Amino acid sequence: MRQDGRENNELRPIHIEPNYTIHPEGSVLITVGNTKVICAATIEDRVPPFLRGQGKGWITAEYAMLPRATAQRTIRESSKGKVTGRTMEIQRLIGRALRSVVELEKMGEKTLWIDCDVIQADGGTRTASITGAFVAMVLAFKKAVNKKQIKAMPVKTYLAATSVGIHPTAGPILDLCYQEDSSADVDMNIVMTGQGEFVEIQGTGEEATFSEEHLATLIGLAKKGIRELISVQKTIIGDESFE
Amino acid sequence: MRQDGRENNELRPIHIEPNYTIHPEGSVLITVGNTKVICAATIEDRVPPFLRGQGKGWITAEYAMLPRATAQRTIRESSKGKVTGRTMEIQRLIGRALRSVVELEKMGEKTLWIDCDVIQADGGTRTASITGAFVAMVLAFKKAVNKKQIKAMPVKTYLAATSVGIHPTAGPILDLCYQEDSSADVDMNIVMTGQGEFVEIQGTGEEATFSEEHLATLIGLAKKGIRELISVQKTIIGDESFE
Amino acid sequence: MRQDGRENNELRPIHIEPNYTIHPEGSVLITVGNTKVICAATIEDRVPPFLRGQGKGWITAEYAMLPRATAQRTIRESSKGKVTGRTMEIQRLIGRALRSVVELEKMGEKTLWIDCDVIQADGGTRTASITGAFVAMVLAFKKAVNKKQIKAMPVKTYLAATSVGIHPTAGPILDLCYQEDSSADVDMNIVMTGQGEFVEIQGTGEEATFSEEHLATLIGLAKKGIRELISVQKTIIGDESFE
Amino acid sequence: MRQDGRENNELRPIHIEPNYTIHPEGSVLITVGNTKVICAATIEDRVPPFLRGQGKGWITAEYAMLPRATAQRTIRESSKGKVTGRTMEIQRLIGRALRSVVELEKMGEKTLWIDCDVIQADGGTRTASITGAFVAMVLAFKKAVNKKQIKAMPVKTYLAATSVGIHPTAGPILDLCYQEDSSADVDMNIVMTGQGEFVEIQGTGEEATFSEEHLATLIGLAKKGIRELISVQKTIIGDESFE
Amino acid sequence: MRQDGRENNELRPIHIEPNYTIHPEGSVLITVGNTKVICAATIEDRVPPFLRGQGKGWITAEYAMLPRATAQRTIRESSKGKVTGRTMEIQRLIGRALRSVVELEKMGEKTLWIDCDVIQADGGTRTASITGAFVAMVLAFKKAVNKKQIKAMPVKTYLAATSVGIHPTAGPILDLCYQEDSSADVDMNIVMTGQGEFVEIQGTGEEATFSEEHLATLIGLAKKGIRELISVQKTIIGDESFE
Amino acid sequence: MRQDGRENNELRPIHIEPNYTIHPEGSVLITVGNTKVICAATIEDRVPPFLRGQGKGWITAEYAMLPRATAQRTIRESSKGKVTGRTMEIQRLIGRALRSVVELEKMGEKTLWIDCDVIQADGGTRTASITGAFVAMVLAFKKAVNKKQIKAMPVKTYLAATSVGIHPTAGPILDLCYQEDSSADVDMNIVMTGQGEFVEIQGTGEEATFSEEHLATLIGLAKKGIRELISVQKTIIGDESFE
Repeated sequence: MRQDGRENNELRPIHIEPNYTIHPEGSVLITVGNTKVICAATIEDRVPPFLRGQGKGWITAEYAMLPRATAQRTIRESSKGKVTGRTMEIQRLIGRALRSVVELEKMGEKTLWIDCDVIQADGGTRTASITGAFVAMVLAFKKAVNKKQIKAMPVKTYLAATSVGIHPTAGPILDLCYQEDSSADVDMNIVMTGQGEFVEIQGTGEEATFSEEHLATLIGLAKKGIRELISVQKTIIGDESFE
Repeated sequence: MRQDGRENNELRPIHIEPNYTIHPEGSVLITVGNTKVICAATIEDRVPPFLRGQGKGWITAEYAMLPRATAQRTIRESSKGKVTGRTMEIQRLIGRALRSVVELEKMGEKTLWIDCDVIQADGGTRTASITGAFVAMVLAFKKAVNKKQIKAMPVKTYLAATSVGIHPTAGPILDLCYQEDSSADVDMNIVMTGQGEFVEIQGTGEEATFSEEHLATLIGLAKKGIRELISVQKTIIGDESFE
Repeated sequence: MRQDGRENNELRPIHIEPNYTIHPEGSVLITVGNTKVICAATIEDRVPPFLRGQGKGWITAEYAMLPRATAQRTIRESSKGKVTGRTMEIQRLIGRALRSVVELEKMGEKTLWIDCDVIQADGGTRTASITGAFVAMVLAFKKAVNKKQIKAMPVKTYLAATSVGIHPTAGPILDLCYQEDSSADVDMNIVMTGQGEFVEIQGTGEEATFSEEHLATLIGLAKKGIRELISVQKTIIGDESFE
Repeated sequence: MRQDGRENNELRPIHIEPNYTIHPEGSVLITVGNTKVICAATIEDRVPPFLRGQGKGWITAEYAMLPRATAQRTIRESSKGKVTGRTMEIQRLIGRALRSVVELEKMGEKTLWIDCDVIQADGGTRTASITGAFVAMVLAFKKAVNKKQIKAMPVKTYLAATSVGIHPTAGPILDLCYQEDSSADVDMNIVMTGQGEFVEIQGTGEEATFSEEHLATLIGLAKKGIRELISVQKTIIGDESFE
Repeated sequence: MRQDGRENNELRPIHIEPNYTIHPEGSVLITVGNTKVICAATIEDRVPPFLRGQGKGWITAEYAMLPRATAQRTIRESSKGKVTGRTMEIQRLIGRALRSVVELEKMGEKTLWIDCDVIQADGGTRTASITGAFVAMVLAFKKAVNKKQIKAMPVKTYLAATSVGIHPTAGPILDLCYQEDSSADVDMNIVMTGQGEFVEIQGTGEEATFSEEHLATLIGLAKKGIRELISVQKTIIGDESFE
Repeated sequence: MRQDGRENNELRPIHIEPNYTIHPEGSVLITVGNTKVICAATIEDRVPPFLRGQGKGWITAEYAMLPRATAQRTIRESSKGKVTGRTMEIQRLIGRALRSVVELEKMGEKTLWIDCDVIQADGGTRTASITGAFVAMVLAFKKAVNKKQIKAMPVKTYLAATSVGIHPTAGPILDLCYQEDSSADVDMNIVMTGQGEFVEIQGTGEEATFSEEHLATLIGLAKKGIRELISVQKTIIGDESFE
């Protein structure tokens, strides 16, 4: 049995609050169990140097945690004067995942900035960030389409992410909270589209290894979870069919 | 008349939500008009090197804004690799203000960390931070007293802060929103105690100067505002008389 | 009684040596008791990005101490790789103060750089810097007006600064030396113009608070000191009436 | 057909030169096609703070490229003053992969440092680094066992890595060179043990997605490649059965 | 007698392997005893800002050591986030030395980057870098002349460098290995041209001093060594007479 | 003829003002023509980690210029967040030179810090720094001997430095001012002791080379200059024979 009484294939309660703050072009507060992330989308009227003059857009993400998002206070990266490797990995992952479901050519020479700021952490902050950032991005694009800043919705399909893992006592489980994650032998983050295709699969044995059978089981759990996450996203942005 | 219809001596609507997040020893979400700040208090079991062995505590603060707390996205200080002068001024101010109403000897050799993270900004973020941080600090100290980690409440009196200024059309006003602040000739932040004593007064002519009469008027406005802010704080922590 | 035998309302001996070094457009060595600061003014033919194309000038200041300006050697900020919060606060204050008495439009698109380097410190380095920087600035502007680089003197009025404070034994005092400053309960820096208007008031209770009566007494002391400082400035630049 | 005439399931020529430099406890030059990496292993007699007193060792890795390892010169990270996100991802991956096949308890309180320096790059530098680093690590551990610094070989099984991907014209391919990697739709790095277990799977759609069938095909290719890589490793360290 | 049995005026075995890596315009691996340095030359089609529009080229060098080039592992400068004083001195020396034998006007507005990366260190890495970098530079210029990117070979004469020193037991010696260098009283690096002119002399007493007679002896040793180094360079690039 | 009418073998006017500031253990203002440097010596009661427990002292130096020490304002190294290569070279040179005339064993486990801050620059700032720093160091050691903090004067002999060079029109010259230095073909800094021994010789062809005859002439000029500099030092510290 899992510590919070969930079934092995059960997500934590999900809530997505759209337009959470007033300034960004799109924003949400996504809640996954005790994990809470503010995702804000900003559209900027230029692209990074390597893309200039190609008529194409770009999507980039930044991720951070408030110092007391965690049980122990963590030092601010601004105080340390540098961004940790973990943060860089996560923000590269979020950007890459969003770009995989967007036709960058349809954006024109614009950059979409996604800021994911974790207000409260209890495991799964990177996958909650992707799931919430997708909604913030769509809200921002809708506004830009309405204002004729972008001709048509550049998003091709839904996108969501979750974690799966193998726990020494519970076995293969979906949507790990922090305590489960700390003791898991294998930890895998999976990002999938509304069509059931993979965008990213990152599986890691933590001082452990795993077999092909384990991989198959974990992918099955993730597919169920991502379908449910996308159905929550649709309650917010269901008027968009992306076709 | 002010742009949002307020009287010159009128605060914006204030709300303080205690225990806003689950991990910190004390936390609030303070809302002042459209300005929203999460204030979190952490108690750490050691003091900075310059205080070791003196049996005395310390209070230090950090302040940051989410990139899209503002109308235009601001670059993260962690990406720039350094903290701006403005941020440093504000976090030094918050720490100093809180220390002025605490008997550090009563804390024992502990450090209280205050993290003020601006979720949404519309002027007055530093004064809202102080007003909210005071409540978060008291909540954390109460918990520490209950757990016998600290012998007695080390806080001596209430503490709150507000801004006042001279606006070219509205004249002397209380609690400036961002647009008022941008066009004010004189901008003053005042921190006061529950006994009506000053803790900090920072008045600045922005490419302008001001007279002693102006100073007297502004102080009068600030005193009214701070009394009202303290009465809101008392609705949360009113069982503490600090005597 | 004060440790150096001064009256409570007495400044330390002041000396301003103009054209102290040969390269800057304007420079002084200002001596306030044992505090010595070299103030150098540089005029640069461009403005920061946020002002370009507005036909307006800008004034910015930098402040530093030699490592052995102090009784204990302090580590160079260049060795630490970053500027401390205290330094940033001071250089922002100096720049703001100078800008308040200059018509930036009259400068054209030029930047005036002020460098204040403390050669020897004994309290009051930031106020000595402002008082000296004002003279260095006027010397630089005079040279620029003579060379027709600027059409007319852009300075509107004199500007000087001093510190006042409340000392546990001496009571309210003017122009604190380092030892007085270290033990003061309240410490206030005041910047005023030749017309007796305030430019900046920064009053701080150091783990202490202060009343409105204290504030009035301290302002009275500061006004007397600043009048005297301006009369010393006039011995150097008295041919300028700024009207 | 692939640009260099290889079959889709064919590795590039592999060569591992042991004891490539004289100073490290273990070192190799690994050559995979035109990719060349120096892997050096250092044993240090202490562990990071979070492990002290647990009687357990640690393995950490650093990765860098010479500026002209690449077709265009890349700026040194030391000149930029910071390590890029890509470098951090790679060094975290190498360290994690090696730790998964080592019994850290058997190391005692020692740290194994792995330095992977890319002398010449043509795709697959991170997987070549892992494959080479494994050999350098084993050589260093053997020396330490011989010198009685470590009681017994702490390595549990062989470890190697390769890349697989889906190329728009060639389809699913093994061991991508730089040009193939730049145009691939899907790029996957796989780390496996001598027992055929997964240690790490990192699959990424580059502005593209992939299906479960694709995943199965890619895993098949990777398994073949890794078996061959391990047989090359065995020619160097074949006297160790790790059992 | 010297520890490795050499005569006092004897160089260690020298080997220069041209075209060591495939990407740079010119590259060598230079081996001087146990010291091994990869020198790579890159030609870039622009000059630094201070030279723009003068029709003249520039030569700049960077130098680094792999962490385990040395007997004890040294921390990467990228991890420290800054380049040490020693590295800066060496890269400034290499750039200056190469510029002294090149007619920068003949290069056109191009920059030659030299990267010297020490793979294995045993004393004399800076002089080996200069000797090797000269060859890499000539190889790059030859290629550029062949491709008509540069009109004529801009190099005026050969250039090489070596170290000399005074050892407490061996006396004045040529080409110090690491252990000799660590115990030498005087250490001197000399860079000379094919015409026997000095480019650079850097002689240092290490907590010691030296007389004019010592200086004369050391210069004599260096001249012999540099003649021999240049004869090795000529075996690689002997078809160029530089006249 | 030289631009300021000096003979080729003539120093600029030298002045050394001892005890220039009140806080350091030893300090001077050294003036060499228009070059002015404050040299301050601090004695600290510990040594760097690599010397601990050896009963030996250490000497280290820092060097900086005020931004307007130069004709064009230079950016502060603290603002850039790093120390330039030129500064590092100079501070390493100053420290090394002073250590060569001090018996570090006689210092006990203390560090002597030398701070050289250039107030006004007109060429030869590094050699003026060494000449002035020597006096500041001796003043500090005398005070420490008087206070019984050090048993005996650890200095073995006098030490001074000057520059020599070959100028395209004036030929070989002593003590170059900035304008001479900018146009010199060869530039050499020489540090010598009171016994006429070399401590450091750093000769550089600036896009030029030089012969052995040139070297001999330059050394002759430097010896004359350094004898004169030492006779000025003796007017300040002549009661010390260092024997």
